[in-house]
Amino acid sequence: MIKESIVKDPSLAPEGQQKIEWAAQHSPVLNKIARNQLADGSLTGRKVAVTVHLEAKTAYLAVLLHEAGAEVTVTGSNPLSTQDSVCAALAERGIRVYATHDPSDEDFERYIHLALETEPDLLLDDGAELTGRLAQSHPELIDKVVGATETTTTGILKLRAMSDEGVLPFPVLGINEARMKHLFDNRYGTGHSSIVSLLANTNLFLSGQRVVVMGFGWVSRGLAKYAAGFGARVIVCEPDPVKLLEAHSEGYEVMNSIEAAEAGDFFLTGTGNMKVLRREHFERMKDGAVLANAGHYDHEFDLATLKEMSVSEREARKHITEYEMPNGRRIHVIARGRLLNSGAGDGHPVEIMDLTFALHALGIHYLASRASDFEPGIQALPEDLDQEVARIKLRTMGVEPEELTDEQMAYQTSWRS
Amino acid sequence: MIKESIVKDPSLAPEGQQKIEWAAQHSPVLNKIARNQLADGSLTGRKVAVTVHLEAKTAYLAVLLHEAGAEVTVTGSNPLSTQDSVCAALAERGIRVYATHDPSDEDFERYIHLALETEPDLLLDDGAELTGRLAQSHPELIDKVVGATETTTTGILKLRAMSDEGVLPFPVLGINEARMKHLFDNRYGTGHSSIVSLLANTNLFLSGQRVVVMGFGWVSRGLAKYAAGFGARVIVCEPDPVKLLEAHSEGYEVMNSIEAAEAGDFFLTGTGNMKVLRREHFERMKDGAVLANAGHYDHEFDLATLKEMSVSEREARKHITEYEMPNGRRIHVIARGRLLNSGAGDGHPVEIMDLTFALHALGIHYLASRASDFEPGIQALPEDLDQEVARIKLRTMGVEPEELTDEQMAYQTSWRS
Amino acid sequence: MIKESIVKDPSLAPEGQQKIEWAAQHSPVLNKIARNQLADGSLTGRKVAVTVHLEAKTAYLAVLLHEAGAEVTVTGSNPLSTQDSVCAALAERGIRVYATHDPSDEDFERYIHLALETEPDLLLDDGAELTGRLAQSHPELIDKVVGATETTTTGILKLRAMSDEGVLPFPVLGINEARMKHLFDNRYGTGHSSIVSLLANTNLFLSGQRVVVMGFGWVSRGLAKYAAGFGARVIVCEPDPVKLLEAHSEGYEVMNSIEAAEAGDFFLTGTGNMKVLRREHFERMKDGAVLANAGHYDHEFDLATLKEMSVSEREARKHITEYEMPNGRRIHVIARGRLLNSGAGDGHPVEIMDLTFALHALGIHYLASRASDFEPGIQALPEDLDQEVARIKLRTMGVEPEELTDEQMAYQTSWRS
Amino acid sequence: MIKESIVKDPSLAPEGQQKIEWAAQHSPVLNKIARNQLADGSLTGRKVAVTVHLEAKTAYLAVLLHEAGAEVTVTGSNPLSTQDSVCAALAERGIRVYATHDPSDEDFERYIHLALETEPDLLLDDGAELTGRLAQSHPELIDKVVGATETTTTGILKLRAMSDEGVLPFPVLGINEARMKHLFDNRYGTGHSSIVSLLANTNLFLSGQRVVVMGFGWVSRGLAKYAAGFGARVIVCEPDPVKLLEAHSEGYEVMNSIEAAEAGDFFLTGTGNMKVLRREHFERMKDGAVLANAGHYDHEFDLATLKEMSVSEREARKHITEYEMPNGRRIHVIARGRLLNSGAGDGHPVEIMDLTFALHALGIHYLASRASDFEPGIQALPEDLDQEVARIKLRTMGVEPEELTDEQMAYQTSWRS
Repeated sequence: MIKESIVKDPSLAPEGQQKIEWAAQHSPVLNKIARNQLADGSLTGRKVAVTVHLEAKTAYLAVLLHEAGAEVTVTGSNPLSTQDSVCAALAERGIRVYATHDPSDEDFERYIHLALETEPDLLLDDGAELTGRLAQSHPELIDKVVGATETTTTGILKLRAMSDEGVLPFPVLGINEARMKHLFDNRYGTGHSSIVSLLANTNLFLSGQRVVVMGFGWVSRGLAKYAAGFGARVIVCEPDPVKLLEAHSEGYEVMNSIEAAEAGDFFLTGTGNMKVLRREHFERMKDGAVLANAGHYDHEFDLATLKEMSVSEREARKHITEYEMPNGRRIHVIARGRLLNSGAGDGHPVEIMDLTFALHALGIHYLASRASDFEPGIQALPEDLDQEVARIKLRTMGVEPEELTDEQMAYQTSWRS
Repeated sequence: MIKESIVKDPSLAPEGQQKIEWAAQHSPVLNKIARNQLADGSLTGRKVAVTVHLEAKTAYLAVLLHEAGAEVTVTGSNPLSTQDSVCAALAERGIRVYATHDPSDEDFERYIHLALETEPDLLLDDGAELTGRLAQSHPELIDKVVGATETTTTGILKLRAMSDEGVLPFPVLGINEARMKHLFDNRYGTGHSSIVSLLANTNLFLSGQRVVVMGFGWVSRGLAKYAAGFGARVIVCEPDPVKLLEAHSEGYEVMNSIEAAEAGDFFLTGTGNMKVLRREHFERMKDGAVLANAGHYDHEFDLATLKEMSVSEREARKHITEYEMPNGRRIHVIARGRLLNSGAGDGHPVEIMDLTFALHALGIHYLASRASDFEPGIQALPEDLDQEVARIKLRTMGVEPEELTDEQMAYQTSWRS
Repeated sequence: MIKESIVKDPSLAPEGQQKIEWAAQHSPVLNKIARNQLADGSLTGRKVAVTVHLEAKTAYLAVLLHEAGAEVTVTGSNPLSTQDSVCAALAERGIRVYATHDPSDEDFERYIHLALETEPDLLLDDGAELTGRLAQSHPELIDKVVGATETTTTGILKLRAMSDEGVLPFPVLGINEARMKHLFDNRYGTGHSSIVSLLANTNLFLSGQRVVVMGFGWVSRGLAKYAAGFGARVIVCEPDPVKLLEAHSEGYEVMNSIEAAEAGDFFLTGTGNMKVLRREHFERMKDGAVLANAGHYDHEFDLATLKEMSVSEREARKHITEYEMPNGRRIHVIARGRLLNSGAGDGHPVEIMDLTFALHALGIHYLASRASDFEPGIQALPEDLDQEVARIKLRTMGVEPEELTDEQMAYQTSWRS
Repeated sequence: MIKESIVKDPSLAPEGQQKIEWAAQHSPVLNKIARNQLADGSLTGRKVAVTVHLEAKTAYLAVLLHEAGAEVTVTGSNPLSTQDSVCAALAERGIRVYATHDPSDEDFERYIHLALETEPDLLLDDGAELTGRLAQSHPELIDKVVGATETTTTGILKLRAMSDEGVLPFPVLGINEARMKHLFDNRYGTGHSSIVSLLANTNLFLSGQRVVVMGFGWVSRGLAKYAAGFGARVIVCEPDPVKLLEAHSEGYEVMNSIEAAEAGDFFLTGTGNMKVLRREHFERMKDGAVLANAGHYDHEFDLATLKEMSVSEREARKHITEYEMPNGRRIHVIARGRLLNSGAGDGHPVEIMDLTFALHALGIHYLASRASDFEPGIQALPEDLDQEVARIKLRTMGVEPEELTDEQMAYQTSWRS
């Protein structure tokens, strides 16, 4: 039996509605896709379960799927990123919502399971939260699922592991693998919004400060880029020697994290791995060091150990926990190690999510209308859909890409001198 | 008769206290000056009236003056920048406060006059709010005043006009003219915090967008620098042809504001002048244009005309007013044209205000202890105090400037080959 | 019969020798590989034909192969990039050289064929100059060839076409595909050296000027990056809409090349394609426009048409040809449209070629010692050799990459929450 | 008696002529001033002695003065920056030249004195070379001089010392003090051309390397800016604590030069002082350190001591001297410590010298036509001439500065609220 929406406070709907409208106003690509593709009826009556950072931009995607005729259920992918006002606004519009800001661990779990119990045929997933729990706990519902879209690098890693174990029986479109996703959302979107959140929350000055960026994948590149853009001296720590040399050639300092622990004023993680900052780092950090995470999970800091090492813990400012070490040094952790930009801000910029959600919308539409084209397992979103999103965006900007002449196309495939 | 403190809600004191502690933790220069200079007793019993953006950093300066024995009264320099929690915390500590967030125009005026009615002998001024009203409305109190410090370019312009008219009968130390002030506070501080506030409030993506910066003085340079650091394509409009060529050589686009009005996605003002954006600009702006002001006063946009031109006005997001034009275009104004970083954020970074307030603290201390050294009128802060602030800051960073050898010093003043 | 070396002027050897020593001094990675890998005897007596931009850095690679016991023949890959002093120095050291600066087309061809006629068993190729001619004109020698390494994107495209036609009967290691090659050589190396050459040759000021970059592949990204680093306003033209949006998000202006033709002050090409700038662009360019090519071949400009359109042609400065159009506009072409950095400069920075040639050295060594491991066709250089080059470089810098803990490695492959 | 021109090789005139034409083509401001101001006859028959870096751009200024009717004598301001081809071209056009590339110290002196012996009434000076020697050695000619223009910071310092000693009996317009000079020539021009020369001469890779910049005046700021633009990690050493903090806030590393000596890969000086790099630095530098000077004189390195410390000295590459230290470390000095951009390159970019020489042309014209307006001593160029140069330049770019409305002008000078 499907339950009613669970939201914290329905009276917050107007505030949520205002935010959703702001997102709608700045989502030209999604608006175009809603008019052109989603409107063709292939989503009518389909049950779509959506797990995402539940704020205005994702809400707007849910609204468009709902308006295209789908029966949409949404739940949050991260305890801190759910905004109660946005949930209220969605519920008011007749979309099923199971999500509250900062729920207990049990409630967080319960909401996801409730979403799965609606027996969805399409999943829009983030971190494989839906797909993973479906495989572990609801094997009886798997056959109902036509396919899923997945948004993060972390999720793809988990799905790949599932696929290798033979427990992924339906197709998943790896949205993250699309160039219009990871080059924009992971790199520009995360970097841009994380640095803004870092500075808005701390009221500190970044120029001239040393910012240690853990990792040099897409997310970390974005962090480094925008930190440097604000005048920070960036230090990169990364296991892949090739990436580390790239970081060096970009003008960043490169070193091992043990050295970096002593040098840094700010520490930003975006590796997708666990315990990236741990006891050996905490021991060396300066008084006042600020730690913030931009990776999907709150595993990047070994917070349990930090708590254990500290003599006291208090809220130093909104969203900032201060741990005092025995020798008086203070270490500041933002948003309890959860996603900095969503947990202590409004998440990615609207225009970036317009691109990511355009890919999801095209992916869900594609799965709904041509499911039989796919084998189970992780699939790339077709290159032409990736390019289509880019073309729509460029058209809203009035820009035309170059067109190759016939002579140029022939030249590219000849080899005789 | 001196009134009790006027604050909105005394129960907010703990939140304000937390913010002040954060400021204290990040103000090493001011802490050093409090221990070394302020502690010498020359402020004991002096009445100091302080008008500033009343948030944590200024509050901390007031606390230090108070702890140095002064009788301090504080009031806000800008209706939107006053934070009620901080006011409550100050009042709780026994500092006299006349300030509430977003007061009526009458209350705003009243608070400043109340501060003057405490018969201060030292003024710590911002925009010449205290000094101007003293000359206009309280001539009987002028003789009591030993001197003042003034923080803004705008204030200095007003004081210069007063001085030219012969109505400035006491010395004013132009803190703004100190290099440690305008090179840091106006340029880095305003630019850094304004861009953070712009992005935190709009949740929009700056990279690749065209940001029109009105002016190319210190404030505008900072705006351009940090906007460009986030990947914006910056357009500069400025009357001084030399500055305009500097902007061009920095890689910014330069044009007349009438053209820029059509091109821009964001418009930032920092000129210190009035009606910098007006009817002829509003008429040409794109749908969705965002306007924000980083100049001292809310005169930089001709908002009265914008209202008159619009068919409707609504809050599009917190701190953002949307004006709809007859042809459907929407123009978004942040913080009602008041200071973006203070009106819709926490103001300048703490470390920057540590420098500015270090200059004020030294200035107030200097006036208190050596008032007879000064003639009436605008004075520069002595160069050695300016350098002293820089030296203290460098020492907290463990950095030593070069020392010239005797041979080098002799070389600089010789001319024979 | 193998001919003696052909060089322009043996007396230039000391100058060439000096340049080679400078390269040797700045090639720590190659020096390490020479000591560790090349010294194992597997190159003894092997005939290696080398076609490259024949200047100091390549010469140093030839010297190391020669010292490792190989019988080395070198020839130039581009008429303008061959430096006669370097050729003289190599010949003096007993390495066979067929190359002169700016030879006739016939001589250029002849040199390459002479190199092939030495019956090499290993080819170190650039632009598939050796491999292509071998397949077209020397089928009888193909069986002698154990394998080749190829350095450019352009070469790989040609080899892929050959492979598709079934005329590539031996393995070719695509050095260009190694990350340590294209991320460094194509991007940083070409961009860095091309902008230096552009400015050293023109003595013009780049800051504030509009630089049109044709393409947004690795080479063009480097051009854009270093042009922007010098304060240029960069315009990117590119057929791939995703890359074009990346360029936009980097803060570059994006537009169609027809529009860009009117806007640009400088035009830089790096597409690997032909006639990228042609009549329709020449017609629209400003007086004084400067054109320079960083792509492998001198086909990127349609120079034949430009000549035809012009009323006169003269050398305006060393390496700069000025074409005057009927309406008086002047168009300036650097190095006759050949590679800007090699044709009008000393080519890539030494430290970059140290990396590229380290890959070639490891590739040639790998082919020589384990040829039977390979199938015919284009092969990637093994990932561990790619990483090995990065690790050696980092070690010369005293930097250690992060090491993942066991727990972290396990975490990356688990999916259960 | 006035001697004939002294040039190295008259047959180089065509090459010099080509270079001068290139400068002419890229000097729109000077061309405009030649047509508008210089053509009014006030220079007819005036004797102008010019001491400058004698290459194409300065030559073009001499040509315009000559064409305006002046009797022009030119000599070089720096032994290495004189280009013989340019001298030949000037002599061929009938301008008197006393200059050869890299003359003996006696010849260098002799040329300047020959120029003074033409009994000039106007001096266009660089480093006060003419004025200083006039005061020291030709007191009898002083009264003939109507006035001079001086181009460098260094020259102004010397002139100020002369003025303080009472030995400067005619007016000198301090061109360097004009904003259109030092903000452009010193900062952008020197930085841009010095980094290009550094890289063109060394063929090394700057990205990721540590560049120590001595000083943080206008010249050093330019060096830091363009080095950072090419991806260098910049370290700044400077005695003024305020400037040092500015450097820090720009994201540069700041430290004492003794520490920096160990850290740096490249060392650039632009202080105007002597022995800025000396024994204590040389002792600590890494093997391969590269030293280059962008300051006016070759006094910034203590080369005598470096020679003394070294066991051998050789030319490592054109323009690069290698000093080997007892422990095998090699230190590389470019252009023997003379001006990097002029001594090992073509000097400042053309468009920058167009601005500087526009100021000189207006200055010389002003002195020639209104000499009686001036007192002896150092004078600022009138602000309106400074702005005039900026306005002409903007007009060639099609850009109009903002115009203030009457209301805005009134607002700037009012103080009442």
